[in-house]
Amino acid sequence: MSLVIVGSIGLDTVETPAGKVSDILGGSASYGSIAASNFTDVRLVGVVGSDFPSEAVELFKTRGIDLQGLEVQPGKTFRWSGKYNDFNQAETLSTDLNVFADFQPKLPDNCRSCHSLFLANIHPALQLSVLAGVEHYALVACDTMNYWINLCPDLLTQVIQKVDIVFINEDEIRLYTGLDNIFEAARGILALGPKVVLIKRGEYGSIMVTKDSYFFAPAYPIYPIKDTTGAGDSFAGGFLGYLAERGDLSEENLRAAVRYGTVMAALDVSEFSVKGLIRIGRDKIDAMVQNLERWT
Amino acid sequence: MSLVIVGSIGLDTVETPAGKVSDILGGSASYGSIAASNFTDVRLVGVVGSDFPSEAVELFKTRGIDLQGLEVQPGKTFRWSGKYNDFNQAETLSTDLNVFADFQPKLPDNCRSCHSLFLANIHPALQLSVLAGVEHYALVACDTMNYWINLCPDLLTQVIQKVDIVFINEDEIRLYTGLDNIFEAARGILALGPKVVLIKRGEYGSIMVTKDSYFFAPAYPIYPIKDTTGAGDSFAGGFLGYLAERGDLSEENLRAAVRYGTVMAALDVSEFSVKGLIRIGRDKIDAMVQNLERWT
Repeated sequence: MSLVIVGSIGLDTVETPAGKVSDILGGSASYGSIAASNFTDVRLVGVVGSDFPSEAVELFKTRGIDLQGLEVQPGKTFRWSGKYNDFNQAETLSTDLNVFADFQPKLPDNCRSCHSLFLANIHPALQLSVLAGVEHYALVACDTMNYWINLCPDLLTQVIQKVDIVFINEDEIRLYTGLDNIFEAARGILALGPKVVLIKRGEYGSIMVTKDSYFFAPAYPIYPIKDTTGAGDSFAGGFLGYLAERGDLSEENLRAAVRYGTVMAALDVSEFSVKGLIRIGRDKIDAMVQNLERWT
Repeated sequence: MSLVIVGSIGLDTVETPAGKVSDILGGSASYGSIAASNFTDVRLVGVVGSDFPSEAVELFKTRGIDLQGLEVQPGKTFRWSGKYNDFNQAETLSTDLNVFADFQPKLPDNCRSCHSLFLANIHPALQLSVLAGVEHYALVACDTMNYWINLCPDLLTQVIQKVDIVFINEDEIRLYTGLDNIFEAARGILALGPKVVLIKRGEYGSIMVTKDSYFFAPAYPIYPIKDTTGAGDSFAGGFLGYLAERGDLSEENLRAAVRYGTVMAALDVSEFSVKGLIRIGRDKIDAMVQNLERWT
């Protein structure tokens, strides 16, 4: 079943303890859609400039990603530059919105009613405008970041009230709810409407919180790490891609989805850009998921 | 089967965000032995001064802890005072070794050959002197801390070479091995001889590393937290107490032991001093372990 992903598509310049790369494919929707493409039919909604490399378009296509929602606007593609002194937190060196500054996501006809919709990390006002154009979805999920929590928490709350699943970092859930205890914080988000909160904890894995239960998943032990950019987006893409493949939201499928998201995040950090997400096939991804099951 | 625990017994003055308490029972062997007393016959080896409160002696006795190895020396009991600004790291305000300064642990006859021996966090030279007096044990484990890693790493290595199980914090294993990656670091410790390394990660749980496998366990979600002093000692006590009860070191028993240790650490942090470790009975401890199984 189809997964629609709306978010940023950019060109990143990244320096980490493992090296430096320039103008590589990045953005929340790029990581999310390529991770999800291992599992299901993905439809990408976003904007790039006329300088967007044709190799990146080809990559999306070879992954079977539908690009009817990909706008190409005159001007430059969104660019982000950051430096990791350790792998936990990037220092943003520059952000050039370029064509992304005027982005008004428009859902093409084939994206109005699908199985799942992922509102990857973009301005909550844009996430709301996408939700306004949606007809029928079995599942809607959102991600966000500290920048939006500080800038427009009320808009973010409006998004959260309309989605089924919230992806959020450990620090961000504390910031958003004002609660130090992440379990109380997750219950606060569930009280707004969502059925599932996925708390991302970086190298410590993730916690899925639902009304009735917790599910704790460790991060997949992988080394060396090259670049943690996109790990959260890859987690969400793997999680939602697997769920879209399975169709229903049983507890068993949700837990397996956490493991698939965990593996995609680990593959992401093993390489710069999206290279880790396409390095191995489904059989090896399944084997990594089986390892995680054995280790917990 | 019997578990012998050698370590510090002290009176702590602790300030945390949840309050302040003075001259309460503390020390690595106190936490470890009371946690373990939920599961097995414990024999405590340590030293206290003539000011050691009779209530604390009574507490050990009511928990069935054998005190033939508890020396009472003229002078004051070991005292430690610390302050937690958050719950992750204590700032030591004062350490008064008192009678502990000249402690030479002597194993009484009933502690020379037992099922398991836990060398809780004390000077590696003392841990070595205990090992020199040991006759037959099925299982020997040690804990340590950053202070000894910095002061006498070579002595600590001699201890590690002689034990089966090493308990160590995430930061400490990096400090001891000089490796940033904790999985590589654990393999470095296994190469010295131990069969099992237990990496403690505070609120993020623990990882058990053996030659063939990992076992990841989350921390038990508990709040409010009052005082994290002794959490690692309680983890080790619960782990080793459960193993001593079961007798053999099958993978299944080792994994269950991690869960019992996790629950004892959670109970510890729920109260000041050792109060949390004796608050509930075995049936409720078992129920908490079952929760952990359900949540992973």
